Amino acid sequence: MIDFTGTYTDEYELAMAEIYFLKGYGEEQAVFDYFFRSLPFQAGYAVFAGLENLLEVLEKLRFDEKDIEYLRKQGYSDKFLIYLEGFRFQGNIYSALEGEVVFPLCPVLTVEGRLIEAQLIETLVLNILNFETLITTKASRMRWAAGARKLVDFGLRRAHGPAGYYASRAAVIGGVESTSNVRAGRDFGIPVTGTMAHSFVQRYDDELTAFRDFAACRPEHCVLLVDTYDTLRSGLPHAIQVGKEMAERGQRLFGIRLDSGDLAYLAKQARRMLDEAGLPYVKIAASNQIDEYVIDSLLEQGAPIDIFGVGTRLVTGPPDAALDGVYKLAFANDRPRLKLSENPVKISLPYRKQVFRMLNGDGNFLGADVIALAEESDVEQMYHPSEPLKSMRLTGYEKEPLLHLVMKEGKRTAAPKPLPEIADYAQRRCAQLPPEYKRFTNPHLYKVGLSAQLKQERDRLVEAHRAVRVT
Amino acid sequence: MIDFTGTYTDEYELAMAEIYFLKGYGEEQAVFDYFFRSLPFQAGYAVFAGLENLLEVLEKLRFDEKDIEYLRKQGYSDKFLIYLEGFRFQGNIYSALEGEVVFPLCPVLTVEGRLIEAQLIETLVLNILNFETLITTKASRMRWAAGARKLVDFGLRRAHGPAGYYASRAAVIGGVESTSNVRAGRDFGIPVTGTMAHSFVQRYDDELTAFRDFAACRPEHCVLLVDTYDTLRSGLPHAIQVGKEMAERGQRLFGIRLDSGDLAYLAKQARRMLDEAGLPYVKIAASNQIDEYVIDSLLEQGAPIDIFGVGTRLVTGPPDAALDGVYKLAFANDRPRLKLSENPVKISLPYRKQVFRMLNGDGNFLGADVIALAEESDVEQMYHPSEPLKSMRLTGYEKEPLLHLVMKEGKRTAAPKPLPEIADYAQRRCAQLPPEYKRFTNPHLYKVGLSAQLKQERDRLVEAHRAVRVT
Repeated sequence: MIDFTGTYTDEYELAMAEIYFLKGYGEEQAVFDYFFRSLPFQAGYAVFAGLENLLEVLEKLRFDEKDIEYLRKQGYSDKFLIYLEGFRFQGNIYSALEGEVVFPLCPVLTVEGRLIEAQLIETLVLNILNFETLITTKASRMRWAAGARKLVDFGLRRAHGPAGYYASRAAVIGGVESTSNVRAGRDFGIPVTGTMAHSFVQRYDDELTAFRDFAACRPEHCVLLVDTYDTLRSGLPHAIQVGKEMAERGQRLFGIRLDSGDLAYLAKQARRMLDEAGLPYVKIAASNQIDEYVIDSLLEQGAPIDIFGVGTRLVTGPPDAALDGVYKLAFANDRPRLKLSENPVKISLPYRKQVFRMLNGDGNFLGADVIALAEESDVEQMYHPSEPLKSMRLTGYEKEPLLHLVMKEGKRTAAPKPLPEIADYAQRRCAQLPPEYKRFTNPHLYKVGLSAQLKQERDRLVEAHRAVRVT
Repeated sequence: MIDFTGTYTDEYELAMAEIYFLKGYGEEQAVFDYFFRSLPFQAGYAVFAGLENLLEVLEKLRFDEKDIEYLRKQGYSDKFLIYLEGFRFQGNIYSALEGEVVFPLCPVLTVEGRLIEAQLIETLVLNILNFETLITTKASRMRWAAGARKLVDFGLRRAHGPAGYYASRAAVIGGVESTSNVRAGRDFGIPVTGTMAHSFVQRYDDELTAFRDFAACRPEHCVLLVDTYDTLRSGLPHAIQVGKEMAERGQRLFGIRLDSGDLAYLAKQARRMLDEAGLPYVKIAASNQIDEYVIDSLLEQGAPIDIFGVGTRLVTGPPDAALDGVYKLAFANDRPRLKLSENPVKISLPYRKQVFRMLNGDGNFLGADVIALAEESDVEQMYHPSEPLKSMRLTGYEKEPLLHLVMKEGKRTAAPKPLPEIADYAQRRCAQLPPEYKRFTNPHLYKVGLSAQLKQERDRLVEAHRAVRVT
């Protein structure tokens, strides 16, 4: 849907790439890590998404004629522009699987390739993965709150313009079953559902005729919106009347939708009225500024809601609205690379790495991920990233490596995964995460540590930098 | 950049449109209003954006072959699909100018056309205008905080995927001068700027060589990032050395960038060190989670920052991350239309309307907008939307109508406006808004009222509905 060309990037990527090109550094091997430093929503975990979209963009990435013409006017050198005309991403990508449960500081995706190409794709990596991971994580929280009840994405109207297209896909990975977004349904195979707008009821002189017309034209999955005038005194009685008329025709009214007022109170009243009218099968859908906390509260109050329509707060991810993912250099110019910081947790990690997840005997996550050097096949001990005395023995636990080679020399190593498969994986991984990491208030802290070898390499480099720092 | 086809919509728009089509209601004249009910960011005003993008999309809007094929599989009727194949938006649009200062409840844009076409574009209108208005409003607040200092958009990496493209444009309307987003620069003519990443410094064995290479290749607008290792003990001394070397070559180091730590303290130290080194012209740029409140606080502390790089919090608009704009039916089926609510402010307003802005004698906004019927040429009194006893005399004030015919029968009434012209208009309109509406804490409430005629029509319809409501 989106025409991502080479100029879909930050200016400094091109500026740095040109210097590397002119100085002859562009062909050096480099390693960059994508990771985030803190979890959004004060959550205990995140769910990684955006990988398939990123790989597709990288395979097709080109500087088109308009790009080259524009960059020429911006003063880039002719030699560099000729290079860009032929540019193709030919690096390797090691990544967590899309739908993986992920934690701060651990590399989620690693790019290994020529310095110039690995640098040039930074903005794309961040732009795609930060956003989609944010929305999938939000959706996953709503799924956790909703239990077995249905979740429908109604967010397109409040999404950030074209981001709505990808938000609907990301929501499905997090556990949303269907969407109102027809284009996302068309392109990603997501089941598309919908109800009616207030305008439909308003167009008629009376609500009953509006409901009858809708039911006559759309007898399957007919959901009537009951709050245009007065939910309990007008909308519900009219919906019940139409529901009974449908029953006489051998049809079933699928549901009613509440979109304003006290949803807990109205849902209970609606359930009682529908049941008393002999329509116990009619489902109750609720919408209006619903998020994970509202779902939690409604269910705690015993609101008999079957379907939650989630919109704004699903597709825009407030209050954070962004994941703070970064892209940090770990190796270049034949040497491991570091960024220092006063805050020890913000010191970057050198070399290409692997992340190992510890499993409990029952197959669930133990609550600890270990970052190791890529060539380490096992880790026996993990160290706290900033407190040297804190460590933990890891012998005896099953360990899963999380990063896999998903792109080799610019080509995917496997066919694109269908969305339902990615969503299934995410649900399975979330099920392996113990509930104390999923709760909304003060979730348990998932431990992330360094292997002995990685810690040693990092500390050695920090010391070396400190020794030469002051000029 | 984005391929907005007919299926870029919510399912219920198509469901309702099909029913209108099959019942023969589709050709009726209808009026829908786009407006929002509350301001984001607890702000005192919003700045309207997205109009040019919306008009462009509407002029080109088609159901393409993939759309039709998909909708056929979804069970839409053949007759309706033939209608959709030939669908073109041919309605009228009355709108505030892009860049206008706008307030809750007032129609910002009105669509007048056939019921079916006006309904079908609902999602597009909301998707484009809600997002761009949100970001322009955020940018406008940052501009207000920054005064005459430069604001640069660095947000692409944290934007919601492709939304970053439009966010950069919206930011410029709000008062941001330049962007790191090259593609937005290419397509919208926004000045593009950038500095360097930490990775550039890290790639070298020493910071000084990195700075020298950068300055040699990019002597113009060279901005050196000084916090990779240690801002005061390494980054700044090295930048000063390179600045002096450039001066010897007859060049000028443009600036240094601070991206971590205490920006107020570091900016003061940097200014002193640069001045003492004979480099008083070197500018100080600051970035790292900057928003309007951070700018305010830094300037209050006297931080000598010349350029603010604003990213995440500009392009994602936290904490709200969405504008709550809605699209409400005001006229259809030969009659004015209403949606009721327990909350009087949420009762919709019937008929096509005009909004008049009251001006003070000095040309500034008085602090009151009046919503009137479209045919009213003057208003003498305004009434509070929900408190019948509150009213205000308006004789003697100059009044500006805000809604203009910008699209007639599906065609724009004027050529697209260049972005700088829209941005200029926004700056002029913001300058007409008194400062008490711009402050961040408890801004003054801009009054919005109804004309006597509109109030009378609305009250009459409410009464009529109440009389027939209970079946």
